[in-house]
Amino acid sequence: MRIDIITVSPDLIKSPFEHSIIKRAIDKELVEIHFHNLRDYAVNKYGKIDDSPYGGESGMVMMIEPIDKCISKLKLERNYDEVIYMTPDAEMLNQQMANTLSLKENIIILCGHYKGIDHRVRDLLVTKEISIGDYVLSGGELAAAVLSDSIIRLIPGVLGDETSALSDSFQDGLLAPPVYTRPSEYNGLKVPAILLSGNFPKIEEWRTEKAIERTKNIRPDLLKKSEK
Amino acid sequence: MRIDIITVSPDLIKSPFEHSIIKRAIDKELVEIHFHNLRDYAVNKYGKIDDSPYGGESGMVMMIEPIDKCISKLKLERNYDEVIYMTPDAEMLNQQMANTLSLKENIIILCGHYKGIDHRVRDLLVTKEISIGDYVLSGGELAAAVLSDSIIRLIPGVLGDETSALSDSFQDGLLAPPVYTRPSEYNGLKVPAILLSGNFPKIEEWRTEKAIERTKNIRPDLLKKSEK
Repeated sequence: MRIDIITVSPDLIKSPFEHSIIKRAIDKELVEIHFHNLRDYAVNKYGKIDDSPYGGESGMVMMIEPIDKCISKLKLERNYDEVIYMTPDAEMLNQQMANTLSLKENIIILCGHYKGIDHRVRDLLVTKEISIGDYVLSGGELAAAVLSDSIIRLIPGVLGDETSALSDSFQDGLLAPPVYTRPSEYNGLKVPAILLSGNFPKIEEWRTEKAIERTKNIRPDLLKKSEK
Repeated sequence: MRIDIITVSPDLIKSPFEHSIIKRAIDKELVEIHFHNLRDYAVNKYGKIDDSPYGGESGMVMMIEPIDKCISKLKLERNYDEVIYMTPDAEMLNQQMANTLSLKENIIILCGHYKGIDHRVRDLLVTKEISIGDYVLSGGELAAAVLSDSIIRLIPGVLGDETSALSDSFQDGLLAPPVYTRPSEYNGLKVPAILLSGNFPKIEEWRTEKAIERTKNIRPDLLKKSEK
């Protein structure tokens, strides 16, 4: 899989790609990440990529021309499955969407910044808009990193232990059950006895019960969704 | 405001704090960010901070002892408003929550990693659990960066233009209207004429209409929420 990330601030977004699971996925050549600095496609020699919005409003808007130039250049080099724009006013990312995207070959992720991007970019160039949640960030870079991470860890071979991703929250529509590790007692707080019993069928039963109980208490909307 | 971030991978999370709006907020001394490497509180000299889960499951679980030591040390130094654990099985972050948290003085953000943390940490030490969305990430670090960014940009004085944050998506329960900037025509695509009219009351009307229209089309659930 290849991910091209278009941003005004490549350095901002780099460190999450240089450590831990994403780094390992890159080292294993399971994924390629390419950052493109939008300023390399600026409309003048001063690196201009934004301008004030029409109609008199505060903030700055990213211009269509540099974005168009950058995306057009990439599209000449290979086919892309999706050109994704990270923005809070879009469909919200969920695990199912991450699963689907992890099967794609080439995707472009465009990070918004400032007040947003010229809407014609969205009409003309973007094929999919994704929000990572109902809150506003100072730019799309962190959202792009979040999306990339959620996708990359699902690519087969990325996680050392294949079953680990399958037992994550959401993969079965339920939150994960509680987990415990050593010591079995800490400052008087004990691990639930069942987990020390060695009775694995009973432990599985307990885990399913707890997963349902936790989902009911914390996120009842997930149960309603899976009933549909 | 002071944010203490506890993580097994401080380097992973650093670059988003060294650029753009967060960097400016730090430079202006409007916020202090402190990273704490959990391995400095490890249970042995090899930096052990995780162990296999009880009850025989894949993955590794973060141990209670290093986390307890780190949080206890911080709590001796000052009072904290919240000890927040980033985890997908929790209440979902929204703009209202970011607003509330931006008024706090000191918060700790604990990043999970691997299979999760020993549940006793959540029972004993954590005061608030926050999810940034219904998807799984390889660690809580990106989630902590997202939460920090969403909060920090709301601290008065951080954004150059105070009104800019107020007209963001969600602050009024609606998605933002489309924005456009120069050129007024690009490859035959024109900016809506109203925005070039100079008739500001009409422009405001158009923006409100578009905001409602976009919210209806893309996120009808937000309108239902605000009707409640």
